[in-house]
Amino acid sequence: MAQPADRALRERAARVIPGGMYGHQSVAALPDGYPQYFTRAEGPWLWDTDGNLLLDLMCAYGPQLFGYGNAEIDRAYIEQMASGDAMTGPAPLIVDLAETLVAMVSHADWAMFCKNGSDATTMALMVARAHTGKTGIVRARGAYHGSQPWSNPRAGGIAPGDQAGQHICEYNSVASLEAAVATAGKDIAAIFAAPYRHDVFVDQASPAPEYAKRARELADETGALLIIDEVRAGFRIARDSSWSAIGVAPDLSCWGKCIANGHPISALLGSEKMRAAATRIYATGSYWFAAAAMAASLKTLELIRETDYLERIIAMGDRLRTGLDKQAAKHGFTLRQSGPVQMPQILFDNDPDMRLGYHWSARMVKHGVYVHPWHNMFLSAAMTDTNIDFALDAAEESFRELAAAASGLGPNERYPGPRKG
Amino acid sequence: MAQPADRALRERAARVIPGGMYGHQSVAALPDGYPQYFTRAEGPWLWDTDGNLLLDLMCAYGPQLFGYGNAEIDRAYIEQMASGDAMTGPAPLIVDLAETLVAMVSHADWAMFCKNGSDATTMALMVARAHTGKTGIVRARGAYHGSQPWSNPRAGGIAPGDQAGQHICEYNSVASLEAAVATAGKDIAAIFAAPYRHDVFVDQASPAPEYAKRARELADETGALLIIDEVRAGFRIARDSSWSAIGVAPDLSCWGKCIANGHPISALLGSEKMRAAATRIYATGSYWFAAAAMAASLKTLELIRETDYLERIIAMGDRLRTGLDKQAAKHGFTLRQSGPVQMPQILFDNDPDMRLGYHWSARMVKHGVYVHPWHNMFLSAAMTDTNIDFALDAAEESFRELAAAASGLGPNERYPGPRKG
Repeated sequence: MAQPADRALRERAARVIPGGMYGHQSVAALPDGYPQYFTRAEGPWLWDTDGNLLLDLMCAYGPQLFGYGNAEIDRAYIEQMASGDAMTGPAPLIVDLAETLVAMVSHADWAMFCKNGSDATTMALMVARAHTGKTGIVRARGAYHGSQPWSNPRAGGIAPGDQAGQHICEYNSVASLEAAVATAGKDIAAIFAAPYRHDVFVDQASPAPEYAKRARELADETGALLIIDEVRAGFRIARDSSWSAIGVAPDLSCWGKCIANGHPISALLGSEKMRAAATRIYATGSYWFAAAAMAASLKTLELIRETDYLERIIAMGDRLRTGLDKQAAKHGFTLRQSGPVQMPQILFDNDPDMRLGYHWSARMVKHGVYVHPWHNMFLSAAMTDTNIDFALDAAEESFRELAAAASGLGPNERYPGPRKG
Repeated sequence: MAQPADRALRERAARVIPGGMYGHQSVAALPDGYPQYFTRAEGPWLWDTDGNLLLDLMCAYGPQLFGYGNAEIDRAYIEQMASGDAMTGPAPLIVDLAETLVAMVSHADWAMFCKNGSDATTMALMVARAHTGKTGIVRARGAYHGSQPWSNPRAGGIAPGDQAGQHICEYNSVASLEAAVATAGKDIAAIFAAPYRHDVFVDQASPAPEYAKRARELADETGALLIIDEVRAGFRIARDSSWSAIGVAPDLSCWGKCIANGHPISALLGSEKMRAAATRIYATGSYWFAAAAMAASLKTLELIRETDYLERIIAMGDRLRTGLDKQAAKHGFTLRQSGPVQMPQILFDNDPDMRLGYHWSARMVKHGVYVHPWHNMFLSAAMTDTNIDFALDAAEESFRELAAAASGLGPNERYPGPRKG
């Protein structure tokens, strides 16, 4: 794929952005052919700077739940912006939004709003420490709770003390969870949990009900808070907290990404028991009280309540997963598809350095479908069966091309993750 | 001031927001009569929920530099939103914006974008630690560098280790700065600096050139980075880094608030020497690559370069300061006005619990001017001499009313700061 415009932008960026790009949207670790820049987005579609149209199965890494440029949601944003956005105090709809989330999320009695997912997770940590007077936390390896130093997944710039007092368990292992809690001993402020195992690079896993229930029990036994980080999965699993279906309520939950369909807002929700502690932390930000993103969130939450978006993305995810499995088998590959079908992780079996996955993903992009070789993907309610068929057509072609190329693929030097397969 | 609508909102909020409101925009510590909620903002004006019109001397605590609802800036936001905002990768204008800031800010060779001011200060801390391999920092008491745990000004939810390795000096005291650096010894990653002393509750102070220069020297001698936190004051002091006029260049600078006139974006700028370290930190957020706020920032920066906004807000600030001094003297009060005139701090002399300041501020609000009794204020380029005259008319009336009431004022139980006078 000739990408002169994207390449020219990368050359300019190399001079004024460290490493040319940073953070989760850098494509430095992705296959050749992935565009770094996009000029337009609409519904389920992205246009790169070289004019290529892509069906986007990443949904901006989650925020897009109702499609790019959703008219109702964006209108709500623009109308509120015309009245007032970042002001010297909040608009009344901060109260409307808090009431709405409290009504929708069964464990929640109150809400606080912020900007980043990591704002919400850090506030949760602070509330837990204020509530318990303790410091330590238990969290699952690889679950990620934001890029702040206390949960940053890399070593650069992290001080020795930033992650002190943290006891790491393996997701879904009750024994490992119990051991981590035992190691924490009396110094335990919180048990953090992801709604399901959505770690990068590896197979995803549903929460084992006994794991979730044991986390709740251990929190109650030790006085620690149970915190669910819903930033990535919230409202793509349920119209409530993601563990509501297995009957486990957290004390605090952290929300972001899709709660305003890409407009910048995140939230910490809490139960009554934590309200007093929440009043004792100081948490704030320059734009946290801005009204336009709150208006967009109210409209997004209305669509979450009043449409069949969830049933539709599950049905489309099923169609995609089933279709891909059949195609892979036909071409001699075994896929490891995991995670909720509406948040698919697609790995190749027997592919320790992901050379198969990288080649296939690059072909998918070439054929107009943006997939990710090792990060969970996201479906949106702007997608249709026609889009899924389009993705499957691209996949058929990509599997065929991979089958022809597979035996000649060299080592994948770009793959940054653990060697599994 | 009867405020039935504001009161009704507060009653609802008390049920669903901890403490009724949180963060810097809570009015819980402000005098009676301050509205908590606003329904509309335009130019220099705010409307509260009870229909009262207020000239806003807080400018959203800084973000408003060209006035609420600035047509050019908001149009840039909306037009970009229609093309694409939060997508699966950035739009090309992230490169334009980085190039623009590098061209405008003399010390900067690169830029990274984020959402909160505290994202930028925390990234600066991480870059300093990555660059030096050290942990400790020196910072001035009360200077504030964001609400993340490492710099959070309150105790609630802060773990004992969160602020370890920090050596506190007094702003503008060379001896104190030298002592803090000496105490840090070899473990010093960064010296943080505010552009001027803009602490809450107290008189503001310009940076003493010998203090700024000594900070630069000490950083060079120890290998630490000099970091200027421009979040509050950036582009209201200069069209460059705020210490450019005194000839001191930082290694890193942190920007936010007014760089997009209230649209949510912040930035870390750095010099060439720190580029490699900046590539080694992992910093990211769900909405950090969103394009609409970048478009708004580009337009805001154009207005910063091409208009006389700075000269105008300084001239208006002079007019306000001179007028208030005359009025206060006429009514028997001595004001302590400090800080840059365009970012005024207005305290009353001999007012240890701020009862005079609170009464006067409340009267100002009653007469249609939103002032803050202990936080620096902000002028915007949307203001005119007519607005300043409006503020002075309100002030004249407020001083008169204060003079009549002063001797009968009881202790100010609501004032949360240090007792000074």
